Amino acid sequence: MTARESLSAHVREMRTLEGILGVLGWDQQVLMPPGGAAVRGAQMALASQILHERTTDPRLGEWIAALDGTDDGALRGGLRNLKRRHERAVRIPSELVGETAMAQAQGFEDWVKAKEAADFSLFAPSLQRLVDLATQTAKAIDPDRAVYDVLLDDYDPGTTTASLKSMFARLRDGTVELLDAIGGEVGEPLGGKWDVERQKLFHDKVARGIGYSMEQGRLDEAEHPFTVGIGHGDVRITTHYYEDDLLTGLSGTVHECGHGMYEQGIPSDLLGTGAAEAASMGLHESQSRFWENTIGRSEAFCGWIAGMLGELYPEQAPSARALYLGSNHVKPGLIRVYADEVTYNLHIIVRFELERALFAGELSVADLPAAWNDRYRELLGIEPGNDAEGVLQDVHWSGAAFGYFPSYTLGNLYAASLGKAMQRDLPNMWDEVGKGEFGSVLGWLRTNVHERAHIEDAPQLVARVCGEHDPVEDLLDYLWSRYGGLAGVSRG
Amino acid sequence: MTARESLSAHVREMRTLEGILGVLGWDQQVLMPPGGAAVRGAQMALASQILHERTTDPRLGEWIAALDGTDDGALRGGLRNLKRRHERAVRIPSELVGETAMAQAQGFEDWVKAKEAADFSLFAPSLQRLVDLATQTAKAIDPDRAVYDVLLDDYDPGTTTASLKSMFARLRDGTVELLDAIGGEVGEPLGGKWDVERQKLFHDKVARGIGYSMEQGRLDEAEHPFTVGIGHGDVRITTHYYEDDLLTGLSGTVHECGHGMYEQGIPSDLLGTGAAEAASMGLHESQSRFWENTIGRSEAFCGWIAGMLGELYPEQAPSARALYLGSNHVKPGLIRVYADEVTYNLHIIVRFELERALFAGELSVADLPAAWNDRYRELLGIEPGNDAEGVLQDVHWSGAAFGYFPSYTLGNLYAASLGKAMQRDLPNMWDEVGKGEFGSVLGWLRTNVHERAHIEDAPQLVARVCGEHDPVEDLLDYLWSRYGGLAGVSRG
Repeated sequence: MTARESLSAHVREMRTLEGILGVLGWDQQVLMPPGGAAVRGAQMALASQILHERTTDPRLGEWIAALDGTDDGALRGGLRNLKRRHERAVRIPSELVGETAMAQAQGFEDWVKAKEAADFSLFAPSLQRLVDLATQTAKAIDPDRAVYDVLLDDYDPGTTTASLKSMFARLRDGTVELLDAIGGEVGEPLGGKWDVERQKLFHDKVARGIGYSMEQGRLDEAEHPFTVGIGHGDVRITTHYYEDDLLTGLSGTVHECGHGMYEQGIPSDLLGTGAAEAASMGLHESQSRFWENTIGRSEAFCGWIAGMLGELYPEQAPSARALYLGSNHVKPGLIRVYADEVTYNLHIIVRFELERALFAGELSVADLPAAWNDRYRELLGIEPGNDAEGVLQDVHWSGAAFGYFPSYTLGNLYAASLGKAMQRDLPNMWDEVGKGEFGSVLGWLRTNVHERAHIEDAPQLVARVCGEHDPVEDLLDYLWSRYGGLAGVSRG
Repeated sequence: MTARESLSAHVREMRTLEGILGVLGWDQQVLMPPGGAAVRGAQMALASQILHERTTDPRLGEWIAALDGTDDGALRGGLRNLKRRHERAVRIPSELVGETAMAQAQGFEDWVKAKEAADFSLFAPSLQRLVDLATQTAKAIDPDRAVYDVLLDDYDPGTTTASLKSMFARLRDGTVELLDAIGGEVGEPLGGKWDVERQKLFHDKVARGIGYSMEQGRLDEAEHPFTVGIGHGDVRITTHYYEDDLLTGLSGTVHECGHGMYEQGIPSDLLGTGAAEAASMGLHESQSRFWENTIGRSEAFCGWIAGMLGELYPEQAPSARALYLGSNHVKPGLIRVYADEVTYNLHIIVRFELERALFAGELSVADLPAAWNDRYRELLGIEPGNDAEGVLQDVHWSGAAFGYFPSYTLGNLYAASLGKAMQRDLPNMWDEVGKGEFGSVLGWLRTNVHERAHIEDAPQLVARVCGEHDPVEDLLDYLWSRYGGLAGVSRG
């Protein structure tokens, strides 16, 4: 076998193992009986260990080196991804991997207890340990770069702390200005009670309608909605239905459809190159956010679903306007996962600022709660009554997922720039969306994003598609247009 | 690590891989979207290959040898199982494994075509190839034993062709005599239409009622009902609901519960010994058949479910007598999977006789259809109109599962002997079953069968539990008692 053939077989095997982990994880979250937990843990640990062996296999490094300088652009991108992944895995000592796994287990346990007691001090020692281990891990990967830059690579390769710092500062100030201009609140909750069996039919129709393939996926219910790529031809999404909240459940489904359609659109002919994957967490999030927000909260979309809801709930059919007001209700709150589209980024920016300061040694773990509360007061004008609704609200840090939060706002930034380029290319898109025709929108994303997979890193991909652009301005323009419009104000 | 510790870790890892294969297979049959088929094939092939590597690992042979003569009885049994499995896997050349896998794929394809066309000649070349490969495989495993004996080991270690031949001949003659005495038909189909949603509630209640744990399992729908042990604490069953046939669906669920409760009852402290598994396919089948037939078609059980059905279907509640007559409708037919409890064994005995003759060189593949039709005419008094309802009806041979069919009737034989011993030990069991109390029945099986796992081979286990016994007489006694009773005749 040539190096190319050997690499391809090896990388396909790695993907097969990831798919096995996907099935195990999906089953665990969707329908595994309670008694299966311990065995499932062992199954996932074993599959992960075998995947780790494949990732650190010295032959992988040799094949990558042998193929260096290939003319094949897709393979070149794939080799860059594989090299990054191989080197990270090789450089982290296995003791550090083991210690981190144990600290994560302890961290999760302590976080649950601390959140229940609304007492950050119960989680602080674990968090300190996780920060120390993440620092050691980053230094093992690359002792010459700043720790937080290395951590970011795990989620959004090609993105740097410096670029985030500058973009997020401008976005923060622009968002605060917008919030101020609209007087803090626009839109109006929809209310009502919505039979869940009919919601299931509704979500299924919407998902199929926008282009998510049920032949190559499934829509199921889970406590926390997620998408999992089990492999080419099997990409599953989950959602959650709320009897007293029609629109939150719907947003979740449309969001996961965005993730799912991205994965469903990655071309199978890239399998085995190392490029057959999403370009980054942030770009993944741009796909889910674009569908959830740009499309799913638009007037055109609300018009489309109003027709469907009229048939499903004839006795309580909401108007397109009521759906639009309900989908775009903005009001500062304490909890990120319930946040609207405008304030959401402020929640992320607080976390980014604190994480960055933590890893730069400018902030201690003990000072986190006070710093958190200060920032919420300054940016959102509200302050947590306790740590449970403040610094302890998210699970991420208990799993050592430092550098993950920025992906959410990166997704919104990418979505805004891609959305602007799309509207330039597809002048009739909103008419089509209003009629429930999503072929050209999805087609544009297929061509410009999905089919490019991870040939380029996300910043390069977006720059190529959008040309000269300023993502912060693109996002602020978008937000001003929708929410300024609702409040009857325009950008100064 | 000691040899014991190393062996234990290795064997647990093998079990973990089997569990992963269990999840992949369950998902494939229960809910995988159509697009996932190719990737799932690759996932299962990879997991099987890794399991094969673990099974053939030379260190496994060394640990087994090092622990030879241990004082620990359970481990001794486990080592016997592991040695058998390791040696079989080591002795079969990998080319033969590959050729067999290809021949199975071709065999399945040809079998589907042949069955559709009702033309055995389309399947004959594939079947000949599969027989040749199975013969080569058996000779590779043990050149000194008869091929069919070696094939039987795969499903029912400890069972020999000679013992089956003699038992099955007596059972065949005794069954024909019983059929003759009851005039060929007893009982009466139940009929009616049964709302499927309520059937689901009914099956769930029955499954829980008899002792299948939903905390450690699930009941789902599948085209062909099956049970899968995903691991300790997660053993799932599936069933099929028929709107126009209440009792066939129920029998399926009770049957799978029998398999499921066996797996759920294997003690976790045997994990890592090689003994934490069912003792054989035949003993597995004894558990499903015992619950399906001995319990599930009894007058007491029919009385219990009559009460439940009265609540679920108040407008069409069947009487206990109607359920009993419907559950025990005996009438010779051509298709094994639809056969009643009396004629079922004749279907198996025909297959056993033909398989045995095939591998002894006494029958050629080309002569199978004629031999099949002759035996059906002789034993059941009916003859297939074509090969699709004759020799082509079952999928097993297309997958090279030669030696598998006898397990079904072995299961009935074991169930009869175990049932007799149980009734001796539990004089009040039928009163309890009538009241829906299954604790002592399940408890007896737990102690005598499930908790013994695969410490002994099935024939030894049953002999120890039942003492001096004649399984053929036990089964004929049981069948005469129930079906002679229904027909008003007793054994001469």
